[in-house]
Amino acid sequence: MTSRADGRALDQLRPVRITRNWLDHAEGSVLVEFGATRVLVAASVTEGVPRWRKGSGLGWVTAEYAMLPRATHDRSGRESVKGKIGGRTHEISRLIGRSLRAVIDYKALGENTIVLDCDVLQADGGTRTAAITGASVALADAVSWLRERNALAGEPLKDSVAAVSVGIVGGTPMLDLCYTEDSGADVDLNVVMTGSGKFVEIQGTAEADPFDRDLLNQLLDLGVTGCAELTGIQQVALSASDQ
Amino acid sequence: MTSRADGRALDQLRPVRITRNWLDHAEGSVLVEFGATRVLVAASVTEGVPRWRKGSGLGWVTAEYAMLPRATHDRSGRESVKGKIGGRTHEISRLIGRSLRAVIDYKALGENTIVLDCDVLQADGGTRTAAITGASVALADAVSWLRERNALAGEPLKDSVAAVSVGIVGGTPMLDLCYTEDSGADVDLNVVMTGSGKFVEIQGTAEADPFDRDLLNQLLDLGVTGCAELTGIQQVALSASDQ
Amino acid sequence: MTSRADGRALDQLRPVRITRNWLDHAEGSVLVEFGATRVLVAASVTEGVPRWRKGSGLGWVTAEYAMLPRATHDRSGRESVKGKIGGRTHEISRLIGRSLRAVIDYKALGENTIVLDCDVLQADGGTRTAAITGASVALADAVSWLRERNALAGEPLKDSVAAVSVGIVGGTPMLDLCYTEDSGADVDLNVVMTGSGKFVEIQGTAEADPFDRDLLNQLLDLGVTGCAELTGIQQVALSASDQ
Amino acid sequence: MTSRADGRALDQLRPVRITRNWLDHAEGSVLVEFGATRVLVAASVTEGVPRWRKGSGLGWVTAEYAMLPRATHDRSGRESVKGKIGGRTHEISRLIGRSLRAVIDYKALGENTIVLDCDVLQADGGTRTAAITGASVALADAVSWLRERNALAGEPLKDSVAAVSVGIVGGTPMLDLCYTEDSGADVDLNVVMTGSGKFVEIQGTAEADPFDRDLLNQLLDLGVTGCAELTGIQQVALSASDQ
Amino acid sequence: MTSRADGRALDQLRPVRITRNWLDHAEGSVLVEFGATRVLVAASVTEGVPRWRKGSGLGWVTAEYAMLPRATHDRSGRESVKGKIGGRTHEISRLIGRSLRAVIDYKALGENTIVLDCDVLQADGGTRTAAITGASVALADAVSWLRERNALAGEPLKDSVAAVSVGIVGGTPMLDLCYTEDSGADVDLNVVMTGSGKFVEIQGTAEADPFDRDLLNQLLDLGVTGCAELTGIQQVALSASDQ
Amino acid sequence: MTSRADGRALDQLRPVRITRNWLDHAEGSVLVEFGATRVLVAASVTEGVPRWRKGSGLGWVTAEYAMLPRATHDRSGRESVKGKIGGRTHEISRLIGRSLRAVIDYKALGENTIVLDCDVLQADGGTRTAAITGASVALADAVSWLRERNALAGEPLKDSVAAVSVGIVGGTPMLDLCYTEDSGADVDLNVVMTGSGKFVEIQGTAEADPFDRDLLNQLLDLGVTGCAELTGIQQVALSASDQ
Repeated sequence: MTSRADGRALDQLRPVRITRNWLDHAEGSVLVEFGATRVLVAASVTEGVPRWRKGSGLGWVTAEYAMLPRATHDRSGRESVKGKIGGRTHEISRLIGRSLRAVIDYKALGENTIVLDCDVLQADGGTRTAAITGASVALADAVSWLRERNALAGEPLKDSVAAVSVGIVGGTPMLDLCYTEDSGADVDLNVVMTGSGKFVEIQGTAEADPFDRDLLNQLLDLGVTGCAELTGIQQVALSASDQ
Repeated sequence: MTSRADGRALDQLRPVRITRNWLDHAEGSVLVEFGATRVLVAASVTEGVPRWRKGSGLGWVTAEYAMLPRATHDRSGRESVKGKIGGRTHEISRLIGRSLRAVIDYKALGENTIVLDCDVLQADGGTRTAAITGASVALADAVSWLRERNALAGEPLKDSVAAVSVGIVGGTPMLDLCYTEDSGADVDLNVVMTGSGKFVEIQGTAEADPFDRDLLNQLLDLGVTGCAELTGIQQVALSASDQ
Repeated sequence: MTSRADGRALDQLRPVRITRNWLDHAEGSVLVEFGATRVLVAASVTEGVPRWRKGSGLGWVTAEYAMLPRATHDRSGRESVKGKIGGRTHEISRLIGRSLRAVIDYKALGENTIVLDCDVLQADGGTRTAAITGASVALADAVSWLRERNALAGEPLKDSVAAVSVGIVGGTPMLDLCYTEDSGADVDLNVVMTGSGKFVEIQGTAEADPFDRDLLNQLLDLGVTGCAELTGIQQVALSASDQ
Repeated sequence: MTSRADGRALDQLRPVRITRNWLDHAEGSVLVEFGATRVLVAASVTEGVPRWRKGSGLGWVTAEYAMLPRATHDRSGRESVKGKIGGRTHEISRLIGRSLRAVIDYKALGENTIVLDCDVLQADGGTRTAAITGASVALADAVSWLRERNALAGEPLKDSVAAVSVGIVGGTPMLDLCYTEDSGADVDLNVVMTGSGKFVEIQGTAEADPFDRDLLNQLLDLGVTGCAELTGIQQVALSASDQ
Repeated sequence: MTSRADGRALDQLRPVRITRNWLDHAEGSVLVEFGATRVLVAASVTEGVPRWRKGSGLGWVTAEYAMLPRATHDRSGRESVKGKIGGRTHEISRLIGRSLRAVIDYKALGENTIVLDCDVLQADGGTRTAAITGASVALADAVSWLRERNALAGEPLKDSVAAVSVGIVGGTPMLDLCYTEDSGADVDLNVVMTGSGKFVEIQGTAEADPFDRDLLNQLLDLGVTGCAELTGIQQVALSASDQ
Repeated sequence: MTSRADGRALDQLRPVRITRNWLDHAEGSVLVEFGATRVLVAASVTEGVPRWRKGSGLGWVTAEYAMLPRATHDRSGRESVKGKIGGRTHEISRLIGRSLRAVIDYKALGENTIVLDCDVLQADGGTRTAAITGASVALADAVSWLRERNALAGEPLKDSVAAVSVGIVGGTPMLDLCYTEDSGADVDLNVVMTGSGKFVEIQGTAEADPFDRDLLNQLLDLGVTGCAELTGIQQVALSASDQ
């Protein structure tokens, strides 16, 4: 039997912490931790929508993902200094935005825009899944902020979303890979699910070895379990009253 | 029963054409057509590898994807004029590169680099899957070019790759979406598979409605069938001797 | 007597092919071939004009030129990846735009804009002259498209334009240089003329040896002949009814 | 007598907290808080120096400053997305770098480079002074890291540096301005001093009203007091053994 | 006693020349020389203000600083070619803008914008102080231009500004450093003052050795003297009638 | 008969002034004036050549052209601020470089590089032709600088170059157009010639009306005369001994 570096069971999440209201100014904010991975999510509400959507009566939700230079083991150069955003950053920003939009009722949101900034303060694998999981909570707080100001046209949050990575490491499927597991994985699959258990996004990649349908199913099983557990943690975080 | 705009069956590919050696200079080149979608793929071989890989004895394969401004129904601005590459372009370039690398034995390739340029001349849905399917053929031709010059350290092509999009349109799963189907799809799944029938990439997105495991399975079934058929078309194209 | 690489006479054009309607979406489109040089031209019509021209009642015509990375013998990097457009690209885009504008009656065009995208799929010398020659045909088709929709204020096409390169290679003046001739030329002259035989642009450069008035006149003679022949080919292409 | 928004005395610092080792990977790291201003400083050590300094036997220290988009009351766009760094960011990055270099003995540092990344997580005035004050501590930890590995040629830290803002608000000089005070100040002065009480940088700006020598002297007095107090807080932080 | 390279006294300015109306088109223009340092300042007036200020009734003044590539001893690359503006350029542009705005009454200026372009034709130390000193004169001419056209809402120039560098070289405080003095200075202080003798900006940097309060006071004394003298030179230049 | 705005004859140049050694640092420098057009040219010599030319024994000459923001009647934005170089700037920089390279013997220059920076201080038509004419003189001075240091492998200057604009304004051919003439011209032709009377570049553009062979010949006649006169002025400037 494969033993994991940190002694976890194959289907066990790392310790997950969701700290709401980590920032004073943002309409919603969360520091989300998946083990040593730490992502600061800020939800910013602005009245109005991008130009191409004006007058539609519909709202908009988008996301931007970035890493601090020393979030990783070795320092990486700032994208602002390079003058351009890398492919990985683009890809993850788009994934987060799509995932959240899947649970938003634009009509109920009214012509408001919510931007989710997901900044990785420390990276140890699973930064995109932590970001999505935290952003769902920050989004809920931002929606509450609008609700308290009677600025909504209905109830825009149709559901919550949570995300987790699963992968095959040394031939064994496992849940919520940390960096050392991830960098040695044969297959890497990110699963994004709604709180009610439906799929929003599935992105599976054979980093080294193409995989068959049976392994895919095992990975999906693990992902379903992990997302359900994360949904529970989100609900606990949001039910805490006085944050 | 749902009828498709062009009268195709739900599990039927559009007419696929693979024209090899469309260019005079490139070591491998393919004009690949999935219906009205037309992608020109050029494989460029250079001796040597990027700096971070020098002296490793390993080769490298990468890809760049782009669209001509008027490939689409309305003209879109050039990324060179804007001075930056958009997120979608980045995302697809990375997907194509990963897909091809999954079937490459770097050691057998030796310290050679192959770049696959995939330029969409006309877009009607499925440009990324057409690009991957065509690039696999152009890659094979580029590898043959190296083989003829005794520039390989072994046989670098472990397999072929083919890709197809599947989706749920109006509640019905269907194969190889054209643009009008794709833009109205509830779920969109791109499947990349090896010639031997294993998964290389799976990217499924709930554009509008999150989906359940059963629908996912139906989509995967369609994708498996489509990729197998494309693999056959690739083999026919490559077996044509005098191109 | 100098013999040319491909056996052509000194005053002979390469085989020229103009294929109209190569694209489904563009209001005008042409695949133009001067021997192995292949340029795809798309004419895009949009209602309205740039901001600085609004309310003037005048239309606008502009052009963008670019090369696919593997159009050339060795792959060249993408300008979108570099994040900036090179001097050569700028220069040729401007030349094409000026050449077409010389035969346009802005008032008759009304407040419409036509953009000519000229993308070189394969380069073997004379890409700018092929682009101008093809763009004149694509422009005519775009104007017809507007005419059929009663969107013109008159007849905007005052004439056609065609272009050809001439040069002195090994001391001998010759017409329509291919790449190997061009790269070894002492003098290189691009001539752009109207269908009625007047000059629109003349750009002559002593790549190596400054030249005298007599040689200039010989080059101009060749250019005049070549442009007249190209005008004829354009007329044949445009008279084909059912394209 | 002027009362301050938060009840502080005119010459009183906000509560200052310096948390060392906030990150796992960085050779030195500090979360520094001046009231609600929160800056994460990471010191990254790399062997070797920039090219222009190679072979000199001298080390190098530099800094980069940035703000998260929602550090401020209203969200500001990312500089990586804009594709360029703004003037304010440039100015502050340079100030931090110069300030730290003033207390470094390059020869003793040997050919090592230390980069100080100062990322503002939350901004409430004084972000640059908090950054410098925290960076001095992170730098000390990075130097210790090198010392433990016997990678130094001597003792590179000649002194510490601390920084504080002072200003004239409503006609009254005061220490360590928070955002509301800063944005209404007539004069704004940033003072950077060594632990031994010498000036490293003085930057005074008449935001609205030019000021006379007497007011300047009062501001300098306040700055000297504030920096001395900050030096004490730095020493306490560094003396804590097991962080 | 320290003797200076050019034989000047320690408190002596280099020969200063202010040539008004050096350009034909600009509403105000000055070629300002501090010894061999030569800066061309052009003041451009436009009706209207930036978008964020529209409808406020207030004017705007801003500045841009740049150096020609061969202003310096060795050629430096153009920022336009690099595609980005360096930190030093940003920092100085901002300093010049702030300095001039300190003497402007926005209300009296009305909704007009004045841009001060300060281009260094030749650099020999003190380019930013020469630029500020010259820009104050060009600004006065641009204001006169507006006054003559009755385009002002009052008298916008509350005062003039002048600037000078002072520094400690070889232990000795001295005024108006030339390049060789500046590059060897221990401390470098730029002082910007109004014509009536108040401070607008003070920027002091310990390039090598942190400095004490006493030295700071000596430097300030020198700066005050230098600015007063420059104010006199500005007044003479502006009183010349027929320029 | 057409009278010109400034009373000049149709074949008369504006007053031309060439001031050598306008800069202290550059190896060659010229302030060249064609009437109110004023261009500062600096020639910078560096040992060595660009990487692609190393070890060839051949030298290199290149040029960069730019305009100060307020060289023109209305202020135009800086290309460094925009972050990219415009097409016109690119085009003219390339023209100047090609023109000078036509009279350079690379072998005799040895592995040295000369960069010609041509910065337009004031523009009144003909900036590119003034730049070429001035650059030829600055290049000669830079070559002399190398000769005095015995850093040449022979005599690299095979000839001089001069340039002038000619055009058809109101139906009349005229020499050396100023801005108002140029902006109303039907045809605009720039002629670059060697001192010995051969053509280096010819660039003719029908801004409004295509032109015939006869008019072209009249324009060429004017250009030949103008260039010969400019060659004489260059020779006088270079023969002045003590500059």
